[in-house]
Amino acid sequence: MAPRVWRIGLIGFGNVGQGFIRILVNKGSKLRERYGFEFKVVGIADPIKGSVFDPEGLDIVKVIELVDKYGNIKDYPGGRKDIDSLYLCRSDSVDIVVEVTPTNVKTGEPGLTHIREALKNGKHVVTSNKGPIALAYPELKALADEKGVLLRFEGVVLSGTPAINLALEALAGTDISRVRGIVNGTTNFILTKMEEGMTYEDALKEAQRLGYAEADPTADVEGWDAAVKAVIIANVLMGGSITINDVEREGITKVTLDDVRKAKEEGCRIKLIAEVVKGDEGIKASVKPRKVPLTDPLANVMGAINALTFETDHLGPVTIVGPGAGRVETGQAILTDVLAIHRYAGGR
Amino acid sequence: MAPRVWRIGLIGFGNVGQGFIRILVNKGSKLRERYGFEFKVVGIADPIKGSVFDPEGLDIVKVIELVDKYGNIKDYPGGRKDIDSLYLCRSDSVDIVVEVTPTNVKTGEPGLTHIREALKNGKHVVTSNKGPIALAYPELKALADEKGVLLRFEGVVLSGTPAINLALEALAGTDISRVRGIVNGTTNFILTKMEEGMTYEDALKEAQRLGYAEADPTADVEGWDAAVKAVIIANVLMGGSITINDVEREGITKVTLDDVRKAKEEGCRIKLIAEVVKGDEGIKASVKPRKVPLTDPLANVMGAINALTFETDHLGPVTIVGPGAGRVETGQAILTDVLAIHRYAGGR
Repeated sequence: MAPRVWRIGLIGFGNVGQGFIRILVNKGSKLRERYGFEFKVVGIADPIKGSVFDPEGLDIVKVIELVDKYGNIKDYPGGRKDIDSLYLCRSDSVDIVVEVTPTNVKTGEPGLTHIREALKNGKHVVTSNKGPIALAYPELKALADEKGVLLRFEGVVLSGTPAINLALEALAGTDISRVRGIVNGTTNFILTKMEEGMTYEDALKEAQRLGYAEADPTADVEGWDAAVKAVIIANVLMGGSITINDVEREGITKVTLDDVRKAKEEGCRIKLIAEVVKGDEGIKASVKPRKVPLTDPLANVMGAINALTFETDHLGPVTIVGPGAGRVETGQAILTDVLAIHRYAGGR
Repeated sequence: MAPRVWRIGLIGFGNVGQGFIRILVNKGSKLRERYGFEFKVVGIADPIKGSVFDPEGLDIVKVIELVDKYGNIKDYPGGRKDIDSLYLCRSDSVDIVVEVTPTNVKTGEPGLTHIREALKNGKHVVTSNKGPIALAYPELKALADEKGVLLRFEGVVLSGTPAINLALEALAGTDISRVRGIVNGTTNFILTKMEEGMTYEDALKEAQRLGYAEADPTADVEGWDAAVKAVIIANVLMGGSITINDVEREGITKVTLDDVRKAKEEGCRIKLIAEVVKGDEGIKASVKPRKVPLTDPLANVMGAINALTFETDHLGPVTIVGPGAGRVETGQAILTDVLAIHRYAGGR
């Protein structure tokens, strides 16, 4: 049965963590009414923003006030400040650990340790952290199953746009033979601007100005971010066990305005397409710029919007289109997973 | 906990019922392996195709053989033949009633009686029958909740393409302010053919030849089918309580080739759009031909494919595109709902 009140421990208080808490502040009463979802945030742990723990539940309105005013929560009145992320993974006062620390796709840390430790201690885990899922999904899933808890991670692909839960739950029973899509908003934004006539360099600057691209844009423009998502799609949705080194990867840095114009003349658009195919020889994953005919639903996905097409046996292609990133959007991914845990525990 | 073996009673053995049983025949062992889903089909009741009941489980390979050869299952060897649909709703040997009788949107019968009776007797119910859901969702949902069982109906909109479960589960936590989409494949097929230059009359004939349109096409071309789906979207996904008479409805019979051409010149396509909007004055639903700009994901949904765009607070618009009808496609809707019941009962 669902506990009377869900006790949430939040690890990481950057954009996603704040986005999630803001949603809880704004929607708490609606969530109680609509889903019978009662909750307390009992702890937040972040090495920069500060850590605080109170088994009676933090005042999340106060928390948001503090972070808005000071950029941290170090002056939160009350609660224990001498706790850290592992404390939340082990505390008897936590039912669900929300792990939203920065992604490291090489080591998965510190998220991997957090998730492992929380699962070991019988906590449900919700994360939007791509690293641990890309690197260690089979191990973490087995651990969650062994402990009888849930590990959920809608936010690792397409933020709150249903992708993982769509494939695993809403499409349950189908076999997925191919997944292709636009899973990186930064590169799609740049390609969209190039179609409007901007050079690659100018489009990248515009993306950086708007906060879509990092100062060092390598992870996006060289296709690394999309490749990590391809690994997750392969291993989680299609039963694969590949690593990022198995992904054939080409970014968008060599795409020219001329390429874009030529594609247009052929009734196509150039898109950075992540593709995972399950065939007789196993799973093949790639990320590369491709000419997509305008009749393809993916061709019309513009700007920072993302999309995935699942090729299924029972339904043929099914395509989902929605935002691929953002503070509120990824906060929503966390929320939908937390509500799923509530439902599976007998909540409505 | 999930029962060791799920016992399914099937009411209605037309296209959808057969589609579902064919999937079980083809995929039974995969479903056992992947989801730990063990099942028996203990009874089938259909006034035309025949009825048979065996608490030990029917031989579904034999059932499909018979219906392929004779068009009915009256010669099924063994089992009791003296049962009817209500028997399956009441039998202690049934855990899940699958209700897939023909839709009647005026009375909801016979589906409404079947669903009510099954829920009253503590059975989970899965249906693709639009009538009962459009007419009596609040009553049926309350009855299911009271009995602690699940009522699921992915198949009533967009067949197996996730729409209901997408909105209620994968998008849980969002508020949906507007839903618009293409929810009728027949009219979308006709409009697609008209864009290729065919007249309305010829396109309708072609749709009838291919089995997309009925001999009497009124339900599709006058927008009745889409209007029923708008009612379901309003009442199930947006908390409304409207009836089909509240839907502003205009079909496609007055759309001319000239209209289609003019829209094209304006960078648009004419689509039959079902729209439900939740505003300060409550819920407004409409079905009518609209000019949709080519930049809208709905504009590029061609032929018998369907699509829905959900406008949400946390994610903005999220669009799903997939098949809207078909024997296997709706069989998949039944399957995904049955597997959800299995999951919620503690299955994987």
